[in-house]
Amino acid sequence: MKLADKGELSLLERIRKRFKANAKDLIAGIGDDSAAIFPLDRALLLTTDLMTEGVHFDLDFSTYFQIGFKIISVNVSDIYAMGGTPRFVLLDVAAPGATDDSMLDSFFDGVRKAIDRYKVLLVGGDLSSSMVLTVSATVAGYALRPVTRSGARPGDGIFVTGSLGDSACGLELLKIINRPIAVESGDRMNRPLSWAAMRPLLIRHLLPEARRPGKISGVASAMIDVSDGLLIDLWRLCEESGVGARVFMRRLPVSPQMKKAATFLNLDPDFLASSGGEDYELLFTAPRGRKIANAHCIGEITDSERIVVERDGTERPFSHEGYQHWR
Amino acid sequence: MKLADKGELSLLERIRKRFKANAKDLIAGIGDDSAAIFPLDRALLLTTDLMTEGVHFDLDFSTYFQIGFKIISVNVSDIYAMGGTPRFVLLDVAAPGATDDSMLDSFFDGVRKAIDRYKVLLVGGDLSSSMVLTVSATVAGYALRPVTRSGARPGDGIFVTGSLGDSACGLELLKIINRPIAVESGDRMNRPLSWAAMRPLLIRHLLPEARRPGKISGVASAMIDVSDGLLIDLWRLCEESGVGARVFMRRLPVSPQMKKAATFLNLDPDFLASSGGEDYELLFTAPRGRKIANAHCIGEITDSERIVVERDGTERPFSHEGYQHWR
Repeated sequence: MKLADKGELSLLERIRKRFKANAKDLIAGIGDDSAAIFPLDRALLLTTDLMTEGVHFDLDFSTYFQIGFKIISVNVSDIYAMGGTPRFVLLDVAAPGATDDSMLDSFFDGVRKAIDRYKVLLVGGDLSSSMVLTVSATVAGYALRPVTRSGARPGDGIFVTGSLGDSACGLELLKIINRPIAVESGDRMNRPLSWAAMRPLLIRHLLPEARRPGKISGVASAMIDVSDGLLIDLWRLCEESGVGARVFMRRLPVSPQMKKAATFLNLDPDFLASSGGEDYELLFTAPRGRKIANAHCIGEITDSERIVVERDGTERPFSHEGYQHWR
Repeated sequence: MKLADKGELSLLERIRKRFKANAKDLIAGIGDDSAAIFPLDRALLLTTDLMTEGVHFDLDFSTYFQIGFKIISVNVSDIYAMGGTPRFVLLDVAAPGATDDSMLDSFFDGVRKAIDRYKVLLVGGDLSSSMVLTVSATVAGYALRPVTRSGARPGDGIFVTGSLGDSACGLELLKIINRPIAVESGDRMNRPLSWAAMRPLLIRHLLPEARRPGKISGVASAMIDVSDGLLIDLWRLCEESGVGARVFMRRLPVSPQMKKAATFLNLDPDFLASSGGEDYELLFTAPRGRKIANAHCIGEITDSERIVVERDGTERPFSHEGYQHWR
């Protein structure tokens, strides 16, 4: 059945039943003009990100489930990148009238999955028709001590929480595969590479998980999530902190699967690792000598110059290299 | 110059300079992963609304300024409808690469105008490219005592803060005029009706102002803003409160300009007043006998039946009549 046959009220009623939330800090949720929450005695974080068809996803190789999961993950990632704990979600869904309601159900299955994963509550949002599928989420969370982008100091180490370039490499594979792969329901394939080789890369792109900072929140002097690419995001952190950076290409963590697939795709793994977007790893700085579990030191903060040291030891300045909209 | 020639970072920098905010309850604003705020000791309200080209606005008869102003107003209206005070705004802007940056400037002029009007701070958001212009805002605000939709009780009076149907009537005029009217820069016209007759209707549609509840917050038992139409929004309030309503058509406040234009357009003023959307008046209930300044009593809350009493005294049940997406 198409949305055009059912209307907004019927969809809203279904969403409301599925996402019914009761919590001590929630006064009013879905179904009122605003959500009303009673903040705990700490900083409140607010973030929003939008995804639209033809730019952030392609229905030719994404399932609705994946889009639902991802819109929550990318927003939660921004809360984590402040050292916070996500708590409430508002969701705007704008979909063409010809969208089948089973597709919307699948979208909300993905939202449900992510919401359960991150232990957050859907408390409001907006439903509307549109020319192209567009979804936007706002996530509110708490932090005892928000970790901003502006606290990096010369001498701090630069760290990243996991392998880089996997998501960008997964996207390149998808362009060749050129059909949606419903990994969430066991769908798989063995071309152009084996499923074992492709799986982690595809999942990283289609169903990215935000990286919980855990103890990093307590030691990081500055933090950002890698959404547009390591170098552009590091550049952003440097801009906010008014510092420089020296990054060693040979220290960037890359997965064996990414190296293998990049070789097959005739792409440079170093390029994918340094400029590929959507890995949603945390990139942070911390005073030297702090022991950081589960993070890779990739360089250090300097006074002003922003330098990449290539594998052969040559140095080159870097600027905002990575994904920029309208570029 | 087109967005495609400048890129996201350059636009972000411009926005950031224009909307620089310093406030005691703001820890981190534009330029970090999330906004970080320190909530005052009261309920926090969160709301979001999205507007997309071809559905919520038509670039053939809206200016970018108007879209910028309106996306803030419609969200602030939801905070007011909870009896709250708006405070922080996040803004998602997704625009095609071919958009001229002077148009985006004009959009942000409208945002600026609204933000100054409502005394709120822009503290974050997301910029991206898209196939069609889509904007979405999230507004956070505070309330000492949130007024939900669910507190109406049988015997309460039903009130509305101002004239109904003006915005819908303005939209019908615009469809005839069929070009943008930049009222914000003094643009005007005298066809098909005189400017004096059309002005309030057009402004109501193009640059709607959210209605500050003031003392109403202290007396209302339930409240909602009229965004989709009086009857559908009253129906929503009744649903949430588990009550009925009796509304008198002859008591609906209508402006003389709307009556005149409706006659010219061959439309029924009563229909526009009861089912036209986007007036952003507050619709609320309050215990009988409470004195309510600046509000019109249009009926009363009953146990369960939802009835419209027509001008001739005949009664008919009403359901969710008004704007519904995908219908």
